Amino acid sequence: MTNINRQFLLAARPHGLVKETDFEYREAPVPEPGDGEVLIRTSYISLDPSMRGQMENRADYVAPLEIGQVMRAGAVGRVVESHHADFPEGCLVSGTFGMQDYVVTDGRRIPLRRFDAEVAPEAALGILGGTGMTAYFGLLDVGRPEAGDTVVISGAAGATGSIAGQIAKIRGCTVIGIAGSTDKCHWLTEDLGFDAAINYKQEDVASALDTHCPNGIDVYFDNVGGEILDLCLARIRDGARVVLCGGISRYNATGELSGPKNYFNLVFRRARMEGFIVLDYAKRFPEAEAQMREWMREGRLQQRVTVVDGFEELPRTLIRLFEGYNTGKLMVKTS
Amino acid sequence: MTNINRQFLLAARPHGLVKETDFEYREAPVPEPGDGEVLIRTSYISLDPSMRGQMENRADYVAPLEIGQVMRAGAVGRVVESHHADFPEGCLVSGTFGMQDYVVTDGRRIPLRRFDAEVAPEAALGILGGTGMTAYFGLLDVGRPEAGDTVVISGAAGATGSIAGQIAKIRGCTVIGIAGSTDKCHWLTEDLGFDAAINYKQEDVASALDTHCPNGIDVYFDNVGGEILDLCLARIRDGARVVLCGGISRYNATGELSGPKNYFNLVFRRARMEGFIVLDYAKRFPEAEAQMREWMREGRLQQRVTVVDGFEELPRTLIRLFEGYNTGKLMVKTS
Repeated sequence: MTNINRQFLLAARPHGLVKETDFEYREAPVPEPGDGEVLIRTSYISLDPSMRGQMENRADYVAPLEIGQVMRAGAVGRVVESHHADFPEGCLVSGTFGMQDYVVTDGRRIPLRRFDAEVAPEAALGILGGTGMTAYFGLLDVGRPEAGDTVVISGAAGATGSIAGQIAKIRGCTVIGIAGSTDKCHWLTEDLGFDAAINYKQEDVASALDTHCPNGIDVYFDNVGGEILDLCLARIRDGARVVLCGGISRYNATGELSGPKNYFNLVFRRARMEGFIVLDYAKRFPEAEAQMREWMREGRLQQRVTVVDGFEELPRTLIRLFEGYNTGKLMVKTS
Repeated sequence: MTNINRQFLLAARPHGLVKETDFEYREAPVPEPGDGEVLIRTSYISLDPSMRGQMENRADYVAPLEIGQVMRAGAVGRVVESHHADFPEGCLVSGTFGMQDYVVTDGRRIPLRRFDAEVAPEAALGILGGTGMTAYFGLLDVGRPEAGDTVVISGAAGATGSIAGQIAKIRGCTVIGIAGSTDKCHWLTEDLGFDAAINYKQEDVASALDTHCPNGIDVYFDNVGGEILDLCLARIRDGARVVLCGGISRYNATGELSGPKNYFNLVFRRARMEGFIVLDYAKRFPEAEAQMREWMREGRLQQRVTVVDGFEELPRTLIRLFEGYNTGKLMVKTS
């Protein structure tokens, strides 16, 4: 244990693509836990598309993030000093610890999830963490897939999409993933069991969707927005569900954004398009965790992680997230 | 009874605004009903925004309409010759009879709804007809308003919007209508009991919505699409329902249509946007009819009709529908 708490602060609100100068590095003293509090040493910090909106305070479902504050980020870590019976020293916990080495909480100010000894930190942050929960509840609760449904997932090789697609396979659906490289597409079909994958950087997505979804789309799990959302809206079946999970094509855009011009097909197809925030499902995380761990034990659900080593890599790694660098869950190993 | 069956045929697919030359007038012989069939004399023919899409075969939830066919239209009429026990001579029936004086059906080829003697033809075509059913199921089944909700309705002085708004009032909601004239707005607030009305042609809709919906919108019942849909999406509350009923601002547009650029607020607000087709609710029309007639007897639900006299007025009246001519249900009296 060092006596320095490395931090990245939000230095500027990004305009367009995130830049390294939007962050400021600082070394602070390690905070001291008081009565009822724990000191946590982060070990992995998560990089997520939703961080972009928070940097601009566009994501009004969470507290504002001000210039000069520690950059908000999900993380896992170990309790290194405990004055709280629920979180003994050494236990693995996750929470919104931010881009820093150490954090103090009473378990409520920054809510904690505790994992048992069988769970690896990478799983706690990924498949059993925010993105895994997003995939589980977004697909099952919002998308409501039925066996035999055709499910299309964009951002399919990302942390959320790759899990959502596997869950759809477990539920007996035909699953088509859309991703941005040959390697990613290969991973989806060869390792994860997707029925097909479309490389949107090389293929004509419209005709590929026509090929792989000859009867249309029952569930479209959207991580990207933009033109791909429109192409899928044009191909939904009666009663389809369009799950709005993310819109990464929009996050770094400047100027006025367009909307899905094919939205009116929701009328002709008696379909719905619905958004959700995974935090609303927090009380049901244990149910999802139990189910997903069972599927993992059975070998039906797997995750891939892209781990970048070194605290100092955090800003650059967030930038690379928006460049499509990662396959599966992207995280930085900080200790 | 004459021996001429006046008809308007679809003569051309409209481009942009509907023109009179998109229709062709023809006089045909009166058809003769066979065994198990009835001959119906239409008395009122309905003009509806959805006819525009059918003229272009854009509405793929119904059978195609070809050039030279009788223009499709909802209508009410009396059975003038019956060989079908369910539909005796003199009874009032409604169905998709088209723009013509006479039609023959066995009750299945063109499905019939029969009304009892207490129902006026104007009610059978309006408040108890397609637009009334659209209002009832769209608001209650798709919109799911709760007492205390703030409900915004566009096209509020139209056949569907005016009924949907009254039903929302019956359900204990605060109801704000958006319409296109002072007279229409006055009717909504003074006669129908809407809490407020916004004249979109004279007021700044954004600031008027801010005034009348200080806590945001729980249900937005959309008949118009376009900019008003976007303004409402920007103001939805957590868990809001956006009911896609129509998009009259789009129907006569040429060139590429834009989509709702604020759609992503469905994510932040955990909200949904959903379309529906009233034909899917046909089995439940009797339930809705019974409930709406009860509300009418209690004086809680009323309709206004705009009746244009004369079969020859049909094409011009459809054009005037898109000019905002009507308050309430628009129909042509043909006999």
